[in-house]
Amino acid sequence: MTTQPLAPEHFQIFDTTLRDGAQQEGLRLSVADKLRIARLLDGLGVAFIEGGWPGANPNDTAFFEAAKTELDLDNARLVAFGSTRKAGGSAASDALTQALVDAGTKYICIVAKSHDRHVTDALRTTLEENLAMVHDTVTHLVGLGKHVFVDCEHFFDGYRSNRDYALSVVRTAADAGAEVVVLCDTNGGMLPSQMADIVSSAAEMGVELGIHCHNDTGCAVANSIAAVEAGVSQVQGTMNGYGERTGNADLTSVIPNLQLKYGWPLVSDEQLASLSHVALAIADITNQAPHARQPYVGHSSFAHKAGLHASAIRVDPNLYQHVDPALVGNGMRMLISDMSGRANIQIKGEQLGLDLDDREVAAQVTDAVKAREALGYSYEAADASFELLVRDQLGILEFPFEITSWRASTEHRVGMAEANDTTSEATVRLVAAGETHSTAGEGNGPVDALDNALTRALAASYPQVKGFRLIDYRVRILETGASTDAITRTLIDFSDGERTWTTVGVGTNVIESSWEALTDAYLYGLVKDFGRS
Amino acid sequence: MTTQPLAPEHFQIFDTTLRDGAQQEGLRLSVADKLRIARLLDGLGVAFIEGGWPGANPNDTAFFEAAKTELDLDNARLVAFGSTRKAGGSAASDALTQALVDAGTKYICIVAKSHDRHVTDALRTTLEENLAMVHDTVTHLVGLGKHVFVDCEHFFDGYRSNRDYALSVVRTAADAGAEVVVLCDTNGGMLPSQMADIVSSAAEMGVELGIHCHNDTGCAVANSIAAVEAGVSQVQGTMNGYGERTGNADLTSVIPNLQLKYGWPLVSDEQLASLSHVALAIADITNQAPHARQPYVGHSSFAHKAGLHASAIRVDPNLYQHVDPALVGNGMRMLISDMSGRANIQIKGEQLGLDLDDREVAAQVTDAVKAREALGYSYEAADASFELLVRDQLGILEFPFEITSWRASTEHRVGMAEANDTTSEATVRLVAAGETHSTAGEGNGPVDALDNALTRALAASYPQVKGFRLIDYRVRILETGASTDAITRTLIDFSDGERTWTTVGVGTNVIESSWEALTDAYLYGLVKDFGRS
Repeated sequence: MTTQPLAPEHFQIFDTTLRDGAQQEGLRLSVADKLRIARLLDGLGVAFIEGGWPGANPNDTAFFEAAKTELDLDNARLVAFGSTRKAGGSAASDALTQALVDAGTKYICIVAKSHDRHVTDALRTTLEENLAMVHDTVTHLVGLGKHVFVDCEHFFDGYRSNRDYALSVVRTAADAGAEVVVLCDTNGGMLPSQMADIVSSAAEMGVELGIHCHNDTGCAVANSIAAVEAGVSQVQGTMNGYGERTGNADLTSVIPNLQLKYGWPLVSDEQLASLSHVALAIADITNQAPHARQPYVGHSSFAHKAGLHASAIRVDPNLYQHVDPALVGNGMRMLISDMSGRANIQIKGEQLGLDLDDREVAAQVTDAVKAREALGYSYEAADASFELLVRDQLGILEFPFEITSWRASTEHRVGMAEANDTTSEATVRLVAAGETHSTAGEGNGPVDALDNALTRALAASYPQVKGFRLIDYRVRILETGASTDAITRTLIDFSDGERTWTTVGVGTNVIESSWEALTDAYLYGLVKDFGRS
Repeated sequence: MTTQPLAPEHFQIFDTTLRDGAQQEGLRLSVADKLRIARLLDGLGVAFIEGGWPGANPNDTAFFEAAKTELDLDNARLVAFGSTRKAGGSAASDALTQALVDAGTKYICIVAKSHDRHVTDALRTTLEENLAMVHDTVTHLVGLGKHVFVDCEHFFDGYRSNRDYALSVVRTAADAGAEVVVLCDTNGGMLPSQMADIVSSAAEMGVELGIHCHNDTGCAVANSIAAVEAGVSQVQGTMNGYGERTGNADLTSVIPNLQLKYGWPLVSDEQLASLSHVALAIADITNQAPHARQPYVGHSSFAHKAGLHASAIRVDPNLYQHVDPALVGNGMRMLISDMSGRANIQIKGEQLGLDLDDREVAAQVTDAVKAREALGYSYEAADASFELLVRDQLGILEFPFEITSWRASTEHRVGMAEANDTTSEATVRLVAAGETHSTAGEGNGPVDALDNALTRALAASYPQVKGFRLIDYRVRILETGASTDAITRTLIDFSDGERTWTTVGVGTNVIESSWEALTDAYLYGLVKDFGRS
């Protein structure tokens, strides 16, 4: 049997989502965003939260100011990031070093060059002066009572370029009082076996080491674990693997790998069970589309499609899952697709509380699903539309309203008096509970205007729809054969404040597919009797 | 220095995008899609292309039929996938085994159970019968002249559950004539050091081994490499890591890792340089959004944002890149964002052929970019809008047309005679080359209708716009403070058949932001004099 490494006495998860994660293309964090994310990370139970680079970035300076009064952490310690002092100066008179101190955190992490050519060619100073910069900055900060970590930038390439010099930077930092010296694979080019060799060699110095990996070879998580196995006691990474280029080591994989595979108690069971929620909440705050295939926390990561598997999963789900998804707050999902057999549909029916045990009924529903999917519908995410389809097939779907007509328009005139001189309007005509309603609505775009008109038209008969709210909207253009027009598929998420549901619409016209998803969302909410207090 | 493993004498990249990759949530491949992808994979130089499961899936049966006449491979061998025969029968009379033979490929890969509990609990047969199924199926196919590979499903959990049995399946497959026995981490739960231990142990049998990894711990690439280092000579994976749950080992990382880091000559330099193109083309065919942070081939994977790096990159790009992006057909990009210093803007200017060396001009452009980004604009992808902004700041932007007004509407009436009873119409009024044009257009949705009306209005003065074509369109809703409305950001890609360019629009109304990106796209195309033959 394979060996399972034992946890070191002190082991720390160091999150740098707010600093290195914010280097990701397309990611921008306001002070309010940073505060919200820091609270989520604290709840998750990481040991350290690196908040940014005060003094170098005005937004980060403002974050540390705000944190002094608005951030009350239970588990984590806030860390300010900075660099060694300028060449030729002194840490005591260095403005950026002072800004680090002014940030008011007990913990400070400074980056130091450890690759000889980066010192001479990029920093344009001598190898000796770089060591003096490390020593001076660390002793200065330690003298002020700060706990100091040192990130050795480009350590691994530095080790290959000039092994002795790279190790002398580590030694200098530790001698000056750094509590952890972090080996950084800054350009992310390492593979795990190389990582294990170099970290083992560095660990012979007897210095407390950390690891900071990037994902440029697709191995950031594995490299972090290889370093942990070779003896480091701090792992730096980001939530969802955010970061420059290919990103940093994804803590949503590192944490469960160490906790569930090696049995290391990094966070409590309850905290681990919040992982999927925290990952998704941070994706929402950062406005990054979640990656469905993200290990442990992704929407697809415990989703089963193959008919072969689906029938066996009814026997024992653990035969097909590497861990119980509930441990990380995720859940198993059966996917409904044209590859689905009856078994998938039946399991899905069970989950929805609909009886599909009858083979003929199940086969009929399966055929209906396949026919709709051939038209471009996709029920993998759209559970609400799937349930409406099943209910329709079972003959138990009633329609509380019927649409007669609708239209939406958007208009713009240059030089209109209003600042916002583009307006969208919509009208909807429908029959609900025997009465005809014809209403108009305005909105930020045609779908918003249609939504407003539709709510108004339905509310006369069904006041509970006022509690329904469109919370997300996604459109995709589906490639089709060359002879036909492209088909658009719209997915819409609705909420009544307690539950969310997703519907799908398909059409050659994007407004048409949006309208179908929109009306399905109201139909589902009414059928399920949502929104009544 | 760290050791670098030597390449085995025979080493094979086995692509299963068309079979296991197609298990991904939301991914559906037509026969035409499969043929196109197979040609791309062949060009890339993989040794084997697994095409699907003939007999089990009608679409796959059709693909192998079509491949007989329509697929002419230069480098790769096509492989048909199937399973061992049914329990209690014989391979010679097994319908699915016959379907495999009928697929007409020289190579066949069959999946066998190698985990004792999967045999007894899921397959519901005896351990002995499962071995007989492996032996019978392999000898039958080898007897027909086929080259046979055997995938040992759930091998690693099987090894932990019953080591002797798992190894006896490997031994049986090899004795029966399987050329490679593939160890499958079917539920993807392994970590690299565990992988190295178990593969090393299995390799002691002296059987030619392969590896098939899934990414459930975020380590599929690292696990594949660990297995290679432990002696396997075939790596199975998929392009872009497509696959069920978290996906399979991503060959777009595995191939360059082995070729560029270990120096193994898997494909030619030209083939490796096609990697980014092939990855993107397959994303287009499968209609999957490319993952920007994907190692080696991702849009962001050689993109630099930090001001710190940007100034040093001007000195020597190789100090900051783990490999030259040109080796995998990718390129370095400088990102323009609110974190950008003047150095980023100046490098970007150089790339666009605009002189921003003057410090004051560069500072002015930097301020303008930051002001626009604060409103929600993002120039990281929208190079065309960025260039228009810079030209405007430099006072060298001329406007070949001026918009007076526009409107777009979509209407639907139930029971209209047409099958497609939703219509979108738009009108545009503008002044171009001193003349006023007022035109109308129809389309699949309001933006399409506006695009058609705009082309028509401009074509009278600038006939080259008839060669411009909107090729992609993406909308995002940006979260803003609670007191204001949500802002929508639209990115539009245009092409004139030779070049593509991207523009950005922002507004509270989605049609308004689309319109801005649309008019910018025409403005850019006219300013750059595109579309003239």
